Amino acid sequence: MTKPDTFESIVGRFACQVHWGDCDPAGIIFYPTYFRWMDAACWAFFEAVGYDAKRMRAERLAMPLVSAQCEFRAPAEQGDRCEVRSTIARFGGKSFVVAHEIVRADATLLASGSETRVWGRFENGPGTPLRGEPIPEALKALFRAR
Amino acid sequence: MTKPDTFESIVGRFACQVHWGDCDPAGIIFYPTYFRWMDAACWAFFEAVGYDAKRMRAERLAMPLVSAQCEFRAPAEQGDRCEVRSTIARFGGKSFVVAHEIVRADATLLASGSETRVWGRFENGPGTPLRGEPIPEALKALFRAR
Amino acid sequence: MTKPDTFESIVGRFACQVHWGDCDPAGIIFYPTYFRWMDAACWAFFEAVGYDAKRMRAERLAMPLVSAQCEFRAPAEQGDRCEVRSTIARFGGKSFVVAHEIVRADATLLASGSETRVWGRFENGPGTPLRGEPIPEALKALFRAR
Amino acid sequence: MTKPDTFESIVGRFACQVHWGDCDPAGIIFYPTYFRWMDAACWAFFEAVGYDAKRMRAERLAMPLVSAQCEFRAPAEQGDRCEVRSTIARFGGKSFVVAHEIVRADATLLASGSETRVWGRFENGPGTPLRGEPIPEALKALFRAR
Repeated sequence: MTKPDTFESIVGRFACQVHWGDCDPAGIIFYPTYFRWMDAACWAFFEAVGYDAKRMRAERLAMPLVSAQCEFRAPAEQGDRCEVRSTIARFGGKSFVVAHEIVRADATLLASGSETRVWGRFENGPGTPLRGEPIPEALKALFRAR
Repeated sequence: MTKPDTFESIVGRFACQVHWGDCDPAGIIFYPTYFRWMDAACWAFFEAVGYDAKRMRAERLAMPLVSAQCEFRAPAEQGDRCEVRSTIARFGGKSFVVAHEIVRADATLLASGSETRVWGRFENGPGTPLRGEPIPEALKALFRAR
Repeated sequence: MTKPDTFESIVGRFACQVHWGDCDPAGIIFYPTYFRWMDAACWAFFEAVGYDAKRMRAERLAMPLVSAQCEFRAPAEQGDRCEVRSTIARFGGKSFVVAHEIVRADATLLASGSETRVWGRFENGPGTPLRGEPIPEALKALFRAR
Repeated sequence: MTKPDTFESIVGRFACQVHWGDCDPAGIIFYPTYFRWMDAACWAFFEAVGYDAKRMRAERLAMPLVSAQCEFRAPAEQGDRCEVRSTIARFGGKSFVVAHEIVRADATLLASGSETRVWGRFENGPGTPLRGEPIPEALKALFRAR
């Protein structure tokens, strides 16, 4: 028996680094930076299974956000090299949840967050209305761990 | 009988606008922008009760994040004039929760989120270690609605 | 006799403030913030003469950058309230130069910069090819000081 | 005979990529992103010769900006992999110029810019007053091409 709403996901890996301009006067990372990284990591995760930016544009696909959250575990400083490890936490009908762990090179977990997104298509390219679409089984299969 | 973890808060108001560079290729706001606004709105809220940036620096005070989350209700476009309405949702011993509603000039609720923060003090100015401190009752009183 | 490449411009005014997240670990403004402000100030300047974001989109107009530069005169800190004062320094055939002065509430000139932009039109909305167009005399007239 | 104000510099290389959130509604890179990259590339260049963020902090060193400029040659799109190639264009007494070329993986020059910076030291860590200092010959030597 399988729990219906868990998903055995492959792991996406997105390398990033804390830059001077990502930090605030406290000398640590300004927290919206983590959300910038999570967004970029999500796009990189989709690119890794064949859905790169060019294909997304060409097929008028989009994945707008429903919600996002993050817990901050340890402060990061300028120069810290990090990796965002992304997994699909759940596939729903037209929406899905991407979980992200942000880990520093010394293995410290800096932050863990998630994004809930809709799978959708623009009527006529970016800027035009967008409609949610059922997530294709073929797409789900690309993220499934073997 | 009072519910212990609710707080009757005044409302902070932070004006902002969606700029060209805040939007993404879909023509709508790039979501980390909302977290940038929430952070700025939190600082403005504290400024409104007498804790402006200069005082925070002079007293070596800080309010680092424990977590943040946001639900995105309606897309915002370039030019949209908005207001972040902030309230203290809860005061704990050393931590507190700020709730933010982001409302467009036409009264549309664009997003609602919250930040959980620690009240703390740097040992010796920004960049040095930071310790959480009990939130003074006098500070809580400044945010209490009358 | 008039110098051909000077332009007596009205002055656009764009209010902004230095936020916590706009500053770096040195406790002063992270310089790309000035360019974000200059871009937003340019859009606001065009809005002020009737070319707001909605109209720009509807008429498929754009003003991509050729170059940008800025000199930093005095450091800005969190909380500083500023104004970007924009003028048209020059109108060419298809390009124009917007000069920006960034002034703090205490009248300190923080930075002065400029953007050189092309006046252009998308073939079919944002994302499609863009072609430069002669700047209409009627547009120039809107920016002319009386 | 050598021209006094040229400098035969090594080349720093900073890898970066255009992310979704770096782009604007026109579907191309929002230009302040280039300045963010130039700043990060400058720090990486100094790290490459032994002056990493930790050392800069420990020795209270800083390199605040005098000016920055950039010419935009070709539009970049989401997904484009780029490299910032940095060289020291000039060492003055207390200031120096870093030239940056931003090149896409297909060898297209996207942008070329420069930053003029002061070499300085904080009196007592970030946030305290900063004074320019003569650039040590030993530091210049680290950047000299052999």
